[in-house]
Amino acid sequence: MKNIKIFDCTIRDGGLINKWQFSDKMVKSVFEAVNASGVDYMEIGYRATEKMFSPEEYGPWRFSKDEKIREIIGDTELKTKLGVMVDIGRVEEQDLLPADESPLSFVRVATYLKDVEKAIALAQLIHDKGYESFINIMAISTVNDYDLKKGLEEIEKETSVTSVNIVDSFGSLYADNVKHLTDIFKSGLNNKKIGFHGHNNLQLGFANTLTAIDSGHSYCDATITGIGRAAGNCPLELLLSYLKNPAYDIEPIFQVIQDVFVDLRKEIEWGYLMPYMITAVLNEHPRVAIALRNSDKKDNCADFYRQLTTPECYDN
Amino acid sequence: MKNIKIFDCTIRDGGLINKWQFSDKMVKSVFEAVNASGVDYMEIGYRATEKMFSPEEYGPWRFSKDEKIREIIGDTELKTKLGVMVDIGRVEEQDLLPADESPLSFVRVATYLKDVEKAIALAQLIHDKGYESFINIMAISTVNDYDLKKGLEEIEKETSVTSVNIVDSFGSLYADNVKHLTDIFKSGLNNKKIGFHGHNNLQLGFANTLTAIDSGHSYCDATITGIGRAAGNCPLELLLSYLKNPAYDIEPIFQVIQDVFVDLRKEIEWGYLMPYMITAVLNEHPRVAIALRNSDKKDNCADFYRQLTTPECYDN
Repeated sequence: MKNIKIFDCTIRDGGLINKWQFSDKMVKSVFEAVNASGVDYMEIGYRATEKMFSPEEYGPWRFSKDEKIREIIGDTELKTKLGVMVDIGRVEEQDLLPADESPLSFVRVATYLKDVEKAIALAQLIHDKGYESFINIMAISTVNDYDLKKGLEEIEKETSVTSVNIVDSFGSLYADNVKHLTDIFKSGLNNKKIGFHGHNNLQLGFANTLTAIDSGHSYCDATITGIGRAAGNCPLELLLSYLKNPAYDIEPIFQVIQDVFVDLRKEIEWGYLMPYMITAVLNEHPRVAIALRNSDKKDNCADFYRQLTTPECYDN
Repeated sequence: MKNIKIFDCTIRDGGLINKWQFSDKMVKSVFEAVNASGVDYMEIGYRATEKMFSPEEYGPWRFSKDEKIREIIGDTELKTKLGVMVDIGRVEEQDLLPADESPLSFVRVATYLKDVEKAIALAQLIHDKGYESFINIMAISTVNDYDLKKGLEEIEKETSVTSVNIVDSFGSLYADNVKHLTDIFKSGLNNKKIGFHGHNNLQLGFANTLTAIDSGHSYCDATITGIGRAAGNCPLELLLSYLKNPAYDIEPIFQVIQDVFVDLRKEIEWGYLMPYMITAVLNEHPRVAIALRNSDKKDNCADFYRQLTTPECYDN
C-alpha cells in the first residue's frame, strides 16, 4: 500500500471558476464528505486580505476566515486537517492568528519560481505561527532546470516546510516531464518531501498523479469530480479507488457527487474541453481559453487553434 | 519520433452508442478529416451479415458495405487505409469480396480469448482474401496469464495477422497492467506486432495509450474527441498532439470537431461519468452503467455503487 497523503482542494481550486460563490450548504456538504472519507488534508479556500478583494464580488472562500470555517465545522469531529492557500502579496501577517487560536492546521504558499524568496519569508512566518507549512511552485512547465535547482536549494536551506509541491498549472506535463521534475526535486530536497498538483487539460491529471506517486511523491492534490479552473484537476474519486487504502472510505464522496455535484455541473463548467487542451499543448496559461469559453465563439476550437498558432511576426 | 501507426475508430466505436445511426454527411466529414490528417488507418464500421441485424434498427456502419464506402470516398484521394471490424459468428464468407475488388485494405477480428480458435480461422480467411488482418482481444482485464499465453502461441503459429491488439474493454487497466500484458504479448509474439485500444472509464484512455507506446506497441486506436461506447476512447487529437509526427496534420481534426462534434455531443453521450468509472473499478462490462445512464436514476452514482458492491449472498 502506498504511503500517500491526499489534499482535497475541491473548494479552493473549484472556486477559481466562480469566484468562490458557493453556498454555505454546499461547502458544508463537501467538508462533511471529505472528513467522513478520511482524506488527510482539506484546503478549504484561500486566505486573503479583504482590502484587496471586494467581498461583494468574491465569495467567502477567497478569505476563508476562521469564524467562517468554525461555522462550517459545527460540531463535526475533525478527522481531516483543515488549511488554506495563500498567494504572495495578497495576505498580511495579521490575517493569520497563531495556529493554536485557529481551526486551521496548515497553510500552503502558492508561488511562481521567480518569487521564491518572498515565498520562503511567508512560509517561515506561517511556520513560526505554529502551522504546518508547504510551498507550491506554480507554472512548473515554464521554468528552466537551472533556476529550479537554485530555488529548491534556497527552500531546502531556509524553510521548515513539510513538502514542496509541483504544480502543473497549464496542464502541460507528460509522464516523462513529471519524472524529470521529480528527479530535480528529489536531488534538491533532502529534508523535505514532494507533492503533486495536476491539471486535466490533456486528460492526464490522474495519470500524472499516479506517475508522481510511483516516482516517490508523498502528497497529492485532488478534487471531487476533478472540479477546478478550466480543465480541472485529478478527480478524488479516482485517486481513492486506486489507492485502496482501508483508511479511506469512497462512499461519502459518491454520495456528495450524487447530492451536490450533479446539479453544480449544470451551473458552472469544468473539464476536458478543446480550448484548454490547445493552451496546454502550447504550454500557455488557460486564461485565453477561459475567455473563449465565456464568449459566443466558445466551441470554435479550430479557429482558436489557428489564432494561437499563426504568429503575427516571427521573433528573431 | 515514435514509429507508431494510428487507427481511427471514430465511426466504428462511436456507433456503439447509437447503433451507427450517423448521417452520410457526418461520416463523410469524419472520413475527410481523418484522411486529410494523414492518420494511417480508419476503421469505418463493422462488417456484418444483414441476416443478423435489422437495417431498420441498425445504421449503415453496422454493415459497412463496399458500395456504401465508395459513396463516402467519392473522388477523394485516399491517404488513409480503410477497413472494418468483424465479430466472430456475425459475418459470413460471402460478406467479404476478394480485397482487390473492395475499397477496404484491412479487416480486424474482435474476439474474446475463449474464442481464439474461431478468431484464427476468420483471420486466415481474411488474409487469404488479400486483406491485411489483425486480431483484437477484447475484455483483456478478465483473462488469466496462463490462458493468454496459450492463445497468443496459437495466434503466432497459425495466422498471418500484422498485429495482435490489447483491448481494455472495461477501461480497467492501470499503467502497470498495460506493461505486464505487453510483456506477455511480446514474449508470445515473435513475428507479429502489438497494438492497444484503450477506454476512458478511469480517465486513463490516453495515458494508457502512451504507456503502450513506451512499452513497444506499434499500433494505437483513437477516436475524435474520444467518442465511443460508455466512457469512450483515447482522443485522437491528444494522440496527434503528443506524437508531433510531421506526417500528421491536426488542423482538420479540430475543424471537424468544431463543425460536427460540438452538435453531436448535444444528441448522444460519451465520456467520463461516474457509473462508467464504477464498473471499471469493479472490472465489469459497462452494460449495467449504460442501462443506468438510460434510466431516470442516471445520476444516482452512490446508489449504483452500493447496489453493485452489496453482495446478495457470499460465494463460498
